[in-house]
Amino acid sequence: MKNKITLHIIVALLVGINGFAAETNQQNGGKAMDKKTSLGAEISLMTPVWVIGSYDKDGKPNMMTAAWVGICCSKPPCVTVSLRKATYTYHNIMERKAFTVNIPSKNYIKEADYFGTVSGKEVDKLAATGLTPIKGDHVDAPYIKEFPVSVECKLVNTLELGLHTMFIGEIMDVKADKTMGDNKEALNMLIFDPKQRNYYGLGENLGKAFSIGKEITNSQTNRIK
Amino acid sequence: MKNKITLHIIVALLVGINGFAAETNQQNGGKAMDKKTSLGAEISLMTPVWVIGSYDKDGKPNMMTAAWVGICCSKPPCVTVSLRKATYTYHNIMERKAFTVNIPSKNYIKEADYFGTVSGKEVDKLAATGLTPIKGDHVDAPYIKEFPVSVECKLVNTLELGLHTMFIGEIMDVKADKTMGDNKEALNMLIFDPKQRNYYGLGENLGKAFSIGKEITNSQTNRIK
Repeated sequence: MKNKITLHIIVALLVGINGFAAETNQQNGGKAMDKKTSLGAEISLMTPVWVIGSYDKDGKPNMMTAAWVGICCSKPPCVTVSLRKATYTYHNIMERKAFTVNIPSKNYIKEADYFGTVSGKEVDKLAATGLTPIKGDHVDAPYIKEFPVSVECKLVNTLELGLHTMFIGEIMDVKADKTMGDNKEALNMLIFDPKQRNYYGLGENLGKAFSIGKEITNSQTNRIK
Repeated sequence: MKNKITLHIIVALLVGINGFAAETNQQNGGKAMDKKTSLGAEISLMTPVWVIGSYDKDGKPNMMTAAWVGICCSKPPCVTVSLRKATYTYHNIMERKAFTVNIPSKNYIKEADYFGTVSGKEVDKLAATGLTPIKGDHVDAPYIKEFPVSVECKLVNTLELGLHTMFIGEIMDVKADKTMGDNKEALNMLIFDPKQRNYYGLGENLGKAFSIGKEITNSQTNRIK
């Protein structure tokens, strides 16, 4: 019984010391207690999954999945899509000066992955998937009828970056399923984790942008008053 | 009774005609039956939420939330961040040739939103949020200690696109919470819906990339055999 009490006291002291050390580190704010570890110059940021539509020189429609993508300007509305020169789509876009961005829903995750794993040089990917290419209204590129959202883009710039060439496309039109109002179609997006090579769906609505942070703005205003 | 039967026959005929019309449209593959509607040249694609860290000319750390962002090259690993010239961060990056990308977790959604709604010209945003800026090891820009992932970027290119200027940053280092192995830190990302102005979290793991689509590749290979 006495031994047990002694042990408890020792444990309590040790916990206390550790707790104090941790607290000191917290307050210190310096490098030593930073819990981050350096991973080096790697790409580990999650990124959207876009399926890029293009025609080859003979008019054969092709789809390729890309994840080195993003929005890059509001006026004119533009997107970036970076591709390696080795891809079939690279040459198609250079030739036709146009591409589409197609957003696969969860239902088309297999097709989206397939589009990213084989080359249009060797296969008719659209025939293989049974998906329907439709010629864009505004640009010389096909979009996928079955996907919930498609964006028609005109090539406005290219930039050599290294392994990848960046294409900048101006958005000419967005096409969305009529059945999905209020941008619910966008909720179908897939997200790619380049490090673990997994696809994720979109999660819960966490709050309104340009609004949820006002609590901090207001608390600051009150403090100044 | 007789009237009821006649009505049933008429209804059945109408349903039949509509059904036939719908089927013809399905098979047609043309524009007429495409269920998509044109939304015009708008930005309605979901995009990641990144908090951009920079120092101003006097060394004051600043954070700004950006969503016109993306990965753009593997070798060297690069990202794009597009900003308006009106922002404080634009001038900071031009001056210091460096920035950080900080990935807020759900716990910091208020701070992330706040960083995007007020200007560093008028406020010390880091002081207002109580978050800790730490000077990058590789670049002249601060990252946020409390966020799960931070990326140090050296400015390598800028491109004028219209309302936005695109900054291309080469990734010099990624810093992640030690407590979160296996890229779980990346699961903390927020996603922004520019059309409805909502933030979303990440959803469920839907499958392995470069793998889940092999079913289609294999079925094709079998067909060729």
